[in-house]
Amino acid sequence: MNTAEKLAEIFKMFPGIGERQAKRFVHFLMSRNPHFINELSDLLLDLQKGTRQCKECFRFYTLQPGGKNDVCDICSDSHIDSTTLLVIERDSDLESIKKSGTYEGKYFVLGGLVPIVEKNTQKFVRIKELKERLQKGGVKEVILAFTLSPQGDHTDHYLRSELGDLKSDLKISSLGRGLSTGTELEYSDNDTIRNALKNRQ
Amino acid sequence: MNTAEKLAEIFKMFPGIGERQAKRFVHFLMSRNPHFINELSDLLLDLQKGTRQCKECFRFYTLQPGGKNDVCDICSDSHIDSTTLLVIERDSDLESIKKSGTYEGKYFVLGGLVPIVEKNTQKFVRIKELKERLQKGGVKEVILAFTLSPQGDHTDHYLRSELGDLKSDLKISSLGRGLSTGTELEYSDNDTIRNALKNRQ
Amino acid sequence: MNTAEKLAEIFKMFPGIGERQAKRFVHFLMSRNPHFINELSDLLLDLQKGTRQCKECFRFYTLQPGGKNDVCDICSDSHIDSTTLLVIERDSDLESIKKSGTYEGKYFVLGGLVPIVEKNTQKFVRIKELKERLQKGGVKEVILAFTLSPQGDHTDHYLRSELGDLKSDLKISSLGRGLSTGTELEYSDNDTIRNALKNRQ
Amino acid sequence: MNTAEKLAEIFKMFPGIGERQAKRFVHFLMSRNPHFINELSDLLLDLQKGTRQCKECFRFYTLQPGGKNDVCDICSDSHIDSTTLLVIERDSDLESIKKSGTYEGKYFVLGGLVPIVEKNTQKFVRIKELKERLQKGGVKEVILAFTLSPQGDHTDHYLRSELGDLKSDLKISSLGRGLSTGTELEYSDNDTIRNALKNRQ
Repeated sequence: MNTAEKLAEIFKMFPGIGERQAKRFVHFLMSRNPHFINELSDLLLDLQKGTRQCKECFRFYTLQPGGKNDVCDICSDSHIDSTTLLVIERDSDLESIKKSGTYEGKYFVLGGLVPIVEKNTQKFVRIKELKERLQKGGVKEVILAFTLSPQGDHTDHYLRSELGDLKSDLKISSLGRGLSTGTELEYSDNDTIRNALKNRQ
Repeated sequence: MNTAEKLAEIFKMFPGIGERQAKRFVHFLMSRNPHFINELSDLLLDLQKGTRQCKECFRFYTLQPGGKNDVCDICSDSHIDSTTLLVIERDSDLESIKKSGTYEGKYFVLGGLVPIVEKNTQKFVRIKELKERLQKGGVKEVILAFTLSPQGDHTDHYLRSELGDLKSDLKISSLGRGLSTGTELEYSDNDTIRNALKNRQ
Repeated sequence: MNTAEKLAEIFKMFPGIGERQAKRFVHFLMSRNPHFINELSDLLLDLQKGTRQCKECFRFYTLQPGGKNDVCDICSDSHIDSTTLLVIERDSDLESIKKSGTYEGKYFVLGGLVPIVEKNTQKFVRIKELKERLQKGGVKEVILAFTLSPQGDHTDHYLRSELGDLKSDLKISSLGRGLSTGTELEYSDNDTIRNALKNRQ
Repeated sequence: MNTAEKLAEIFKMFPGIGERQAKRFVHFLMSRNPHFINELSDLLLDLQKGTRQCKECFRFYTLQPGGKNDVCDICSDSHIDSTTLLVIERDSDLESIKKSGTYEGKYFVLGGLVPIVEKNTQKFVRIKELKERLQKGGVKEVILAFTLSPQGDHTDHYLRSELGDLKSDLKISSLGRGLSTGTELEYSDNDTIRNALKNRQ
């Protein structure tokens, strides 16, 4: 493979990028001036140097000037309620919840969902790290926040069984289920209708 | 307008049908044999003759051989729990909920949603009929089941205020809100995240 | 099956209509007033009574007041050039070409395309009728106008071989191939690029 | 703006990438290991160092080991017919035509289309360079190959008028127009039907 082909292979790993668009990226870059490529290359190296994985919530974050070296800005912020811990699958979930402005506690990035047929769970999710995080004390409620899918449900059940006996006073909850914005009854699946009826209020 | 054009105008009123498809329907019918058109025409007249609007829930239903003349099969079924009444916008919502197999009470078709800026509400929804239905007694809980949209929310608030003082022991609830099947946190709007957090359990 | 179910089955035969929309049509009709259904039913019967299949071009047409009983308005119009005959697959193709205002000759509706693996061709297309139409004289050029698809190409080749020896002075042509409006080279398939290059001018 | 934001701004310039996906790219890169970023950064710099713009056809190409420094592999290949010159808008058009295996001559990348209301044309397309290329001799036919759009048509007319008097024996042609693969008559626009009829054969 030549350089252009190798580069296309790397772009194909980017989220949502197929073979055709990967090639278009390479063509696009070939026609840019050297300054553009140099800036892109420099920013990539800067990003890499400035990126840390938080030792507490395991998300990737950009090191701020004067920031602590090991803990992200949310985990090191003493004004944030540290009695609730929202467990999410991946970094991008955290961005969405933060942007919604409706949650004021801490986060924990599980790093994946638990496959339904799988014994060696620790390879897929940070269950060991989550237990350690909870044993450090302070957290009173763990909120499990996964996509409503068979694998999301399975992960929810798995964490409830793993964390259930960890601490006597730990409350475990899961995100509420029912109608989402724009959901029309006529086009809703049976599970959504069942949840919406069960959780009526 | 000739017959073909008049017919296309009628098909354009059918749900989801635009001008081009309405014309294709007419062409399609022109190329059928007379037997096909006659059968369609007969079935339409049969449907009209056999259709009744239920005096209790106001849905349209097909009169069954030996069925009562004024009340649909659900409203006349004494095995169905008549202490809960699910209020929905339109007939097709009823089909979805019935098919989900998760609700075992009676229904009431409101006939529309309440426009947000509107005083003469009775033109749009069967509020008078709903009050009469509730005053006949027997119903202990009214479940409001509307699409999560500004107009759906407005209708929910309107009915709660109208029905609140009707009977001292009437419980009013609304469908639960939160994540629907398949909802991904990353792509959820702020309201859905807020509801899912608030209604966690 | 009851009337509503039978009617849904018929609507499912309409072009582009699936099970869900067929049911929505039935619900829609159940909620209309009797006058609407009666008008629809009457128009359907009128359409059937007023529709004829043209003895010359085989399209379905609406009988006009004072119109001839067997021949459509195009075929009976002596001002239309009757030396060119455009052979198309179906009635809706004729509408598109007529609307484009770029063709001034007569038409012939073949009634289908010739399946690629098939011996008994007369079942699928009006080849016998087309030959009779041409033998009546007057036509100097037959234009074959089919979709660019394997089956359209096969039909083109089949008609060229069937009509080739019919009359010594009959010209047979096919629609030109190349770029269509909006076609972008970057996204064009090899056949289109080949045709566009071959037919450059 | 911090590094992550600057990087997202650059990704937003990539073809087909909006704000949300640009951010996802940054997140994706933050979670890769250092080796991945280093390789990407190195390949980008390699691509930049190895990319040349051909002095004859103006496309960007990857310098091959032992390749000439100024002229791409197509322009320097003496086996390729140099009497035909295909004029295209951009590099990616060349890839598509080359891949189709239906053209065996040389190329010229115009670098854009001529805006319809615009006097200073040289800013937008390489008209001066194209004239110089043709005056060097050898080319007997110029094929204009642009998208069928108002601007593509305008560019076609503009080049015909600019090149018409350049050399007495220069043939100028444009890609053929008509039906493309898969085009259905029923859904074709008037221009496509007109071209297909005019160019029938």
